Formats: sequence, structure tokens, C-alpha cells
Amino acid sequence: MTTSNPTSSNPGSPTDQTTDSPIPQPGCEVALGFRFAGVHCGIKRNRRDLALVVADAPCAVAGMFTSNRVQAPPVRYCREVLAARDTIRAVVINSGNANACTGTPGMRDAREMAQRVADALGLEASEVLVGSTGVIGRAMPMEKVRAGIDAAAANLSADATAGRDAAEAILTTDTRAKTANRAVELSTGTVSIGGMAKGSGMIAPDLIGLHATTLAYLTTDAQIPSAALRDLLHIAMDDSFNAITVDGDTSTNDTVLLLASGASGTALATDEDRRRFAEALKAVAFDLAMQVVRDGEGAQRVIEVQVRGAASIADARKVARTVAESPLVKTAFCAGEPNWGRFMMALGRAGVDLDEGAVAIDVGTLAVVREGLGTDHEAEELRAEMTRDSVVLAIDLGGDPEIVASVWTCDLTEDYVRINGLYLT
Amino acid sequence: MTTSNPTSSNPGSPTDQTTDSPIPQPGCEVALGFRFAGVHCGIKRNRRDLALVVADAPCAVAGMFTSNRVQAPPVRYCREVLAARDTIRAVVINSGNANACTGTPGMRDAREMAQRVADALGLEASEVLVGSTGVIGRAMPMEKVRAGIDAAAANLSADATAGRDAAEAILTTDTRAKTANRAVELSTGTVSIGGMAKGSGMIAPDLIGLHATTLAYLTTDAQIPSAALRDLLHIAMDDSFNAITVDGDTSTNDTVLLLASGASGTALATDEDRRRFAEALKAVAFDLAMQVVRDGEGAQRVIEVQVRGAASIADARKVARTVAESPLVKTAFCAGEPNWGRFMMALGRAGVDLDEGAVAIDVGTLAVVREGLGTDHEAEELRAEMTRDSVVLAIDLGGDPEIVASVWTCDLTEDYVRINGLYLT
Repeated sequence: MTTSNPTSSNPGSPTDQTTDSPIPQPGCEVALGFRFAGVHCGIKRNRRDLALVVADAPCAVAGMFTSNRVQAPPVRYCREVLAARDTIRAVVINSGNANACTGTPGMRDAREMAQRVADALGLEASEVLVGSTGVIGRAMPMEKVRAGIDAAAANLSADATAGRDAAEAILTTDTRAKTANRAVELSTGTVSIGGMAKGSGMIAPDLIGLHATTLAYLTTDAQIPSAALRDLLHIAMDDSFNAITVDGDTSTNDTVLLLASGASGTALATDEDRRRFAEALKAVAFDLAMQVVRDGEGAQRVIEVQVRGAASIADARKVARTVAESPLVKTAFCAGEPNWGRFMMALGRAGVDLDEGAVAIDVGTLAVVREGLGTDHEAEELRAEMTRDSVVLAIDLGGDPEIVASVWTCDLTEDYVRINGLYLT
Repeated sequence: MTTSNPTSSNPGSPTDQTTDSPIPQPGCEVALGFRFAGVHCGIKRNRRDLALVVADAPCAVAGMFTSNRVQAPPVRYCREVLAARDTIRAVVINSGNANACTGTPGMRDAREMAQRVADALGLEASEVLVGSTGVIGRAMPMEKVRAGIDAAAANLSADATAGRDAAEAILTTDTRAKTANRAVELSTGTVSIGGMAKGSGMIAPDLIGLHATTLAYLTTDAQIPSAALRDLLHIAMDDSFNAITVDGDTSTNDTVLLLASGASGTALATDEDRRRFAEALKAVAFDLAMQVVRDGEGAQRVIEVQVRGAASIADARKVARTVAESPLVKTAFCAGEPNWGRFMMALGRAGVDLDEGAVAIDVGTLAVVREGLGTDHEAEELRAEMTRDSVVLAIDLGGDPEIVASVWTCDLTEDYVRINGLYLT
């Protein structure tokens, strides 16, 4: 066993880590060298809304940001910092206000948040990154934010309660906190990886290569230089955050950071070490991404759209994403509408060359389409497969079976419309 | 006045042409040389489900079909006929069953429908086109279809009741029949253009240039050769059916046909005649397209997303379509959620280069964004503009004001989910 998952939670299964139990399970805070805090400073009415992640010493960092052409000041600020340096000391994140479409004042507020953290902790502002999520286009309530930063800085801790508090403080319409972790046995010791994420709407991370507001903060105590960290983060995102979609709407604020403190004293010394670490990092990212989809606005179930036999991985991903973002496919999964023609319609409109007569589709264990035609399954059988908690919609286009890609999504329900039709009010 | 609109109905305004009044208003049947019928043969439970349009003599024809790679047998059959000839005599259309994903039997059924019409009317099968819309993946109930064709053939008429019956017979989840017409004064006489359409979901016509199931049948009594007819149809579709989207899901069955009987004895003799005719044809197509959006599944209002100042028309269309298909934008219009940040998010993710600081957005008469920042409008003012029956969302990217494109869509409501979550049952 190279990886273990102390807090369990199978990828895609619901977890509830927002309980009021006095001693929470280990969560995002497992890596040595980091302290966390999450407080309520009044940006939101009743929930925690400001988180701090602080490294005991300068730590290596890698970041990925939204590909949206409209970029929130905190995103622009982080890009600016990471272009100039590759170690940082802290990250401050607020929820309830995205500080997006706020122009020069918004940029000034992002900088002031970094400065306030620096002042409270005796750091340089340029060692502090900033993340924001919430409503777009409103001025940051800086008086509340300043008080929140001071309170968070005074409450930093490496214990599980602090980790949970931070994970809660970054949430918006999420119904539960999202954390994951792994311990990895390497050739010269054991290292830990922890992660927290938020995201339930405006989710289609497209990190430069994310579609969402997805925020994810990953920490490890392994010794890894920033350049290697960037490669590891890119690989980990490919089949996790970059392979999920709730509504196809890519946020202005998506940010994923990976911080490496080195506090375990253990480096990735061998190729096998690198392989094991990469696998564990990907597992943490995938676990978090599945929690995001599972908690998608109004979601009742998670659907993996798996496409096999396309001409290329790019084509497979394009078909998978088109099917996963089709409103008619997503509403079909809402009540288990056994109308498989929608799957055929959606894959046909992906803009990828395909032979309709070669298409096979399975939903769960049920063969639904063979050679482009419906099998003689019963509608009720299909409905039963479509209404499970986790569903695999497997599409085979008939080409090379080694070429396969998946995109994970959730169903489109009346609750999605209710949540988004009346978000502010 | 070169065009007039006897039945009125402003583009985008609701019309009800399914009333039981004994003498309906003139609708799709105004062009000389055509007869219509619409009957109930039992494919659907209670509504008319089979239409016939018959030309008194061979008529010129132009067709446009879905760009979906999965193409229903009736679409493949029509393409086959039109590749071989450019005049036809009849079109048979059924609703309730799309005859899609039905393979060889589906193709045989499409051919048999043409043959049955030919037999009933003394024509060649190759002079008969076929259209189908409804559930995908079910065998056509040919016994009912045969009886329906015979009944329709026995009931052909050029009167308004027959036109209305035909327009009703092509509907699926539509709540009302859609017809439009124009009379055009040319240099040597007056010609008429009539049209009927259906479509309320799976609407994003992309006619080879349609995204929908959109079916539209346009008829004119002008004398126009098929080659010129094709050009006219392409131009008319560009800013009508190809500029609307309900859910972004492009159907397997989209078909638009334009038939010219020449029965008026009037040709397009001059450039001015061609211009007038093209304008009137576009007006009929636009009127029908607006009726389709207005009747979008669950729709409460029509939103015109108008994008100005992009680098090219293609970029303007891309931004307009991305905003028009954004679930967060569409749900915002459901209850008038005054969250303009969603407009910024959506335009930013269109994949088009733009300067966030140059963006201006107006909703109706309200200036909402200037230089990328929210104006100091009241949320209630924005809500009021967003909840009108017809809304213009005008986005200016700051470039050449002559470069402008619009895409029309409807709001995304809980009813859309209800309708599509339980379509078959």
C-alpha cells in the first residue's frame, strides 16, 4: 500500500465533515509545517467566511488559475506574485465576495489583504497569496475583512479543528466542507498530502489549461522544488478538477494551489517515489473533485461520462464534455428519464467525426445501445440504472479501446434553477 | 411597403393560432400552388401527428439539415433525394416519433412513407420528402403512419384550416402552432411566402452550416430556380434559425425546406426584386424562429444577447452564443436575479480575446456595466428590466461598433427540468 486514506470517503461518495463533533477527523491539515484558521468576519451572515493557511517557513508553491478572460483581482494578484517568486508563506481566502469585476479598487483590496496578513504575522506582503469566492461585482467589505484576518492570524493551529474551520470558511453555496488527504510511504520516509476545496456552481474548471468557482488548496510536507511541484500539479488536475463540470460555466476566480513545506524532511528521491507521490496527489485531487461534483448545486447523483474508442484523447474528452454538459442529458438523469436517444444526440453534436453505426452505450451494467441502435432493454431497467447514487455512462465509439477519457458531472434538477434563480435574495 | 404581415404577430410576441375558431387567420398556406393537410393517426395520443404539404406541380426546392453527426433516417433520405434532383411534389411530416437511431429499418420506413404518399397522389416516391420529430430510438408505428398518410392525402386543401391543421401536426412539446407569412410586391406582380415551424426543446439549430429539433417548411409562389432558392434559404437562416438557442442541444432531425411553386407567375426579375424577396423571406424565418424561442420548453421570456465591438462577426457570434447558453445566465433571467457578474463570467469564457476594462453592458434601458465595472444601478431596477417579456442584453466589447451579432434565447426555468425530466412518462 503506497497510499492510505485515513478519513476514508470513497471518491464520489458523500461525506459530512461539517458536524459539530468537538474532535473532527483528520482533514486538510495532515501535512507538517502548516497551520490553519477559519473564522466568521461578517462577509456572509452566519457562516465562516475567512480562512488562513500559513507555512511555518517559506514553502515551495505551484498555482493554476481560471482560463476565463475576465479574471478577478485576487487571481491577477496571485499570478503576479508567482511570476516573481516560487516560495510563499501564507494564503488568505475569503468567501461571500468574489472581488471580481472590481477594477483598480479590487486590486488594491487584494493587495491590502496580503499586507494585512503580512503585518499580523511578521511576513512580507509578497509572500502572501489571496483567494476570493462569492458574489461578483461588489466592493470588498474591507473593515470586516481586516478584522477577520486579525482574528484568523490569532487563531492559527495545526489541529483538525483548525483544518475543518478553514475548509468551512471557503465555502459558498456548498452544502458541506470538502477535505481529503493521503499518507505516502517513500523510500526514505513517509510524507502527507492534505487538501481542501470548495465549489458547487459555476463549475467547469479550465485551469489554463479549470472550468469552475473552484478553489482548492493542497499542502504537503514532502521536500519538492517549485518546478517539479508545477508539473505534479498539472498532472494531478488533468483527470480531476479539469475533468469535472457542473454547469459548464467557468468562473472568473478558479484557483488551485499546491504548497510543499518540506517539513517531513523527506524528498522524492527515486522515480518510484515520484510515481507514488504523483499517484497520491492525484488521488487527493480526484477525491476533492468528486466531492465538488457530488455537492453540485441541486445535484442528486454523480455521472461519469466515459468515452472510449475515439480517434484521439482530445476527441474522447470533447465527446465526454459535450455529453456531460448537455441539458437534455443532465435533466434525463434528474428523474431517470430512460430516453437514451439524448445520449446519441449529444455525442453526435460534439463536432467529432464518428460512425453512428459503431456506437455502443452502457449505463451501469445495462447495455442500452449496440451498433447505434437501442437494445431491447426495458425502460424500467434503464431508469433503475440512471437513478443510482453514482452512474457510469459508458460510450464506445468503436475505435481504439485504449483511447479513453472521462468527464464527471451531476444531474440538472429543479433545485439548480431555484438556487441560481434566487442566489442573492 | 414591400412586405406586409396579414396575421401580424410581432417577431417574438406570443401568438395563438391553435384556437378552435371555424375560420382561422391566414397562416402557412398563403402561397399559391400548395395544398396542406394535418391529421391524427395515433402516433401521439390526442393531437394531430401527420402533416402533408403537396405542390400542384413539380416545384423548386432547397433544404438545410442538422449538422449533428448522428442523423435520423428521414434526414439522410432527404439529403439523398436532394442530391439527385431539384424539384419535388410533396413533403410528409410526422410528430411523436423521430425515426432516429433506427438504422436500416428506419431508413426503410422513411422510404415507405414517401412511397405511400406517391401511391396516394399518383407521384414518384423520389418526388416526396420526409420529416420526423419526436422520441428517438423507437420503431415507427407504420400501420398508423400508413393510415395517416392515406387520410391526409384525402383531405388536402389550400384553405386556412388545412394550413393550421398541418402546422399543428408537426408539433411535439410545443404549446402552440407556429406560422408566419408575408406578401411581397415585386416589379411584375405580388408573391406570397408562408411558413410553419415546430421546436421547443433540443433547440440550437446548426443547419450546415441548425442547432434544434427544429422543423420548418417554407413555401412561396414566386418563380425561383433551385440554385437561387438555396442561396436565399442560407441567407434567411443565418440571422433566424441559426441565431436561436433554447438549450444548446442540436437535434438529429433538424430540417428546413423552402419550396417554390412559381404559381404566382411572377419571377424575381430585378436586383430590387431579389432584395425585397430576400428581406421578406428572412422576415418570415425570423418570425418563426422567434416563435420557437418564445415557446422554448419552460420559457417565460425571450432574451436577445446582442454583442457589439468584437474583433470579427465570428467572435461576436461566439460570445453571444456562449452567454445565451450559459446556465447561470439563463437561470438569472428566470426570476430576474440581478447578478450581472454572471454576464461578465459568461462573456469571459467564450474563448475570445477581450479587454475586461472595455466592456459595457446594458439590460433593456439600464446601464449595468461600464468599463468592466458595475454602475451604481439599483438591483431592483435591474430585476425589473430582466423580467420583461422580451429583454435585450446588449454587450459592447469596445471594438468596432459596426461589428454586431445577436443570438436569441429564453430563460432556464424549473419547468424546463420538469418537462425534460419526465418526457416519456
